Amino acid sequence: MNHNTSSPASSTQPSRGEPLSTRVLAADLPSHVGEPVTIAGWVHRRRQLKSVSFLVVRDRTGLAQVVLTGPAARALDALPEETVVQVHGFAVANEHAPGGVEITDAALTPLSGTAVAPPFDLYRPSVAAGLSVVLDNAGVALRHPLLRAPFEVAAAAVAGFRTHLDGAGFTEIHTPKIVGTATESGANVFGIDYFGRQAFLAQSPQFYKQTMVGVFERVYEVGPVFRAEPHDTARHLAQYTSLDVELGFITDHHDVMDVLTGALRGMLTAVELRAADALTRLRITLPAVPERIPEVDFTQAQELIAAATDTDPRGEPDLAPADERWLSHWALRQHGSAFLFVTGYPTAKRPFYTHPDPDVPERTRSFDLLFNGLELVTGGQRLHRHDDYLTVLAARGQDPKEYATYLDVFAHGMPPHGGFAIGLERFVARLTGADNIRSTTLFPRDLHRLSP
Amino acid sequence: MNHNTSSPASSTQPSRGEPLSTRVLAADLPSHVGEPVTIAGWVHRRRQLKSVSFLVVRDRTGLAQVVLTGPAARALDALPEETVVQVHGFAVANEHAPGGVEITDAALTPLSGTAVAPPFDLYRPSVAAGLSVVLDNAGVALRHPLLRAPFEVAAAAVAGFRTHLDGAGFTEIHTPKIVGTATESGANVFGIDYFGRQAFLAQSPQFYKQTMVGVFERVYEVGPVFRAEPHDTARHLAQYTSLDVELGFITDHHDVMDVLTGALRGMLTAVELRAADALTRLRITLPAVPERIPEVDFTQAQELIAAATDTDPRGEPDLAPADERWLSHWALRQHGSAFLFVTGYPTAKRPFYTHPDPDVPERTRSFDLLFNGLELVTGGQRLHRHDDYLTVLAARGQDPKEYATYLDVFAHGMPPHGGFAIGLERFVARLTGADNIRSTTLFPRDLHRLSP
Repeated sequence: MNHNTSSPASSTQPSRGEPLSTRVLAADLPSHVGEPVTIAGWVHRRRQLKSVSFLVVRDRTGLAQVVLTGPAARALDALPEETVVQVHGFAVANEHAPGGVEITDAALTPLSGTAVAPPFDLYRPSVAAGLSVVLDNAGVALRHPLLRAPFEVAAAAVAGFRTHLDGAGFTEIHTPKIVGTATESGANVFGIDYFGRQAFLAQSPQFYKQTMVGVFERVYEVGPVFRAEPHDTARHLAQYTSLDVELGFITDHHDVMDVLTGALRGMLTAVELRAADALTRLRITLPAVPERIPEVDFTQAQELIAAATDTDPRGEPDLAPADERWLSHWALRQHGSAFLFVTGYPTAKRPFYTHPDPDVPERTRSFDLLFNGLELVTGGQRLHRHDDYLTVLAARGQDPKEYATYLDVFAHGMPPHGGFAIGLERFVARLTGADNIRSTTLFPRDLHRLSP
Repeated sequence: MNHNTSSPASSTQPSRGEPLSTRVLAADLPSHVGEPVTIAGWVHRRRQLKSVSFLVVRDRTGLAQVVLTGPAARALDALPEETVVQVHGFAVANEHAPGGVEITDAALTPLSGTAVAPPFDLYRPSVAAGLSVVLDNAGVALRHPLLRAPFEVAAAAVAGFRTHLDGAGFTEIHTPKIVGTATESGANVFGIDYFGRQAFLAQSPQFYKQTMVGVFERVYEVGPVFRAEPHDTARHLAQYTSLDVELGFITDHHDVMDVLTGALRGMLTAVELRAADALTRLRITLPAVPERIPEVDFTQAQELIAAATDTDPRGEPDLAPADERWLSHWALRQHGSAFLFVTGYPTAKRPFYTHPDPDVPERTRSFDLLFNGLELVTGGQRLHRHDDYLTVLAARGQDPKEYATYLDVFAHGMPPHGGFAIGLERFVARLTGADNIRSTTLFPRDLHRLSP
């Protein structure tokens, strides 16, 4: 492949940052006004007028306008939208062009074959297609700047999550996704033929991350988890990305909530810094994470609702979606916070490894984090004594043998510990206001969808 | 749980970095000499003498010595190795103690139940157990400072990988691990029952990362890949962590090699900075990544071997392990480099999506990176024109319909692109000199092993 080089020095020693060595990104054009430039990207839109034609080129940083006259303009006929082109020309200031710069005296070189038309126009500011068209054609559809934006937010959020935890002494781990027993719940688990044996896809790294507290004290994992969800809803996926955290040497669940608060702040700060352009496209203002996220006890929350509304949830073992919405509004009114911790959930509604409240055994040292009316994160302190596990499994009528390799580690000395898990796609959906989690999942897997 | 607080201010506002708020980590003890301190960790070793006893406490940063006399010394009887304890005492300089500090006037509080003895002594400097004992008891065995070290190297390496790529304009992605067709090779793939349909575990994110070049231009993914490897060797795993990279707008595979060189340098720099203590434990000196990693063409490599050794590999379609070892030695002798790029592998031995050398179509724009005698990374430029895919699949007698969703995106305009994949566990094994990849995998999955 040939490309025009405006600087012989840079062509012999390509910059590591941009292999197509002399390529200027759309966003960087303003600093090249008055210079010859080479840009490259997709034909985003063509507008062919009588005496002049306009070509808008899209790259990962934005749009660049190219002005074509004479024979060069006619070359556009053979370059339909989405064809990849390289443009060599001259950067000129023009306040009406995107970014205040346009390219004149342009020579075009196609870098791809002639593109087939996408399933809907990618150049229109809004998305002229329904979700199923988008999902069926995700590889092309996600090129639309609006559809791409949530994934820029996701990448930034995960980076912020890791940066915060790395700075707080956490170690990243990678645990098995193929497991021998469907331990955590038994239901909604995918079976695998594992060299002729029955195995399962892991529903969470729960047991592994707890185990690794014994090795590294503080661990996190960012990885896929699998749920054979038979529900065809806007919230359920068969695979999602779980941001899992577990830490030892805690006093109680409040230490876990502190780490979550710090991680959330790290995520939102990183989104602000690294995905600013995506936020602009999505027209989103990020919520602030208060210095201390307000906390309400489960029982107290039910009493608040009973006193202020027509419903009386007192005595219910869990919060209804309407309760969570009301509590979120309350937190915003009362504390100016889009986030609210609800703590002390009933033991019966939490997994067996949840640490009970020593003073009120039917309540747990657990929490949910509500955000804009919905549960975003679940976490808490876990049991850490081998005897406590045996007791609780016996009380639930479960055979400890099923959990043998998991339980073993607690016989060898484990510190008080706890953790939480954030569903990445759900987090991004809440943040960006997406009403279907499939809009924040690159290639969703659900009851019906196994491709692309 | 109760813990003594030496500073009332810090107990009301726990530091986010260390929930057990007044806890001092072993490595930080030297800056607390002359002060009351609280440490916490595992009973690493007890030495009970007549008039004095020593307790060595292990935490994630190292070891701390506690000197006990009188009744406190007798408390050690009930605290066998691996029991988790909190120790409140006074930090005193002692040049003979680990880190030059020991703790006197100590009060012990157990934080766990009384620990059952581990399968082998974790306090001995070397590991007194074979690999199968270690793997069968990984949750406890990995607490040994030597066995834990490779995973500290791994975490640091991945962090360095991401930092380099984030700085070079890459976007992190998360792609499906459940796929509808066993596209890439068909063999060695795990089958899943997906809501009553046949599905498979992804062997690599190859097609997805290529697709996402059309959206983000430069992408990476760190995630599990799955191979139903029927080989029971020191190198094969059923699941490993793949560091996948793909980038568009390249001139040829050399641009990909440049990104790989930068990523490698980022990984090793991060290991040096973030896992220094693990390197000391493992007694490892990291290799230098030369400014430019030497490169030898496949044919030229075979000629070098033919000229210098008794074997004549010329005409062979691939390099034998002995060839790779010889070439690595040659690179070290000739170029002082532990790394060597071999380029131009025969088309027949590379996947169908590999871009041929336009001048020599039976050779490819591909590379292997050899490190200390073994292949560490494979990569290259890929085909990017839809027609080229149809041609190459026809030539290989494969039905393009099998690849329909994958191929579709190439009809919609894709730039010249390429990428590579690094197996994390293999990388760490090579770096740390581990002779079995299971030593650098947290909970390995293989032909026989499905737990812990």
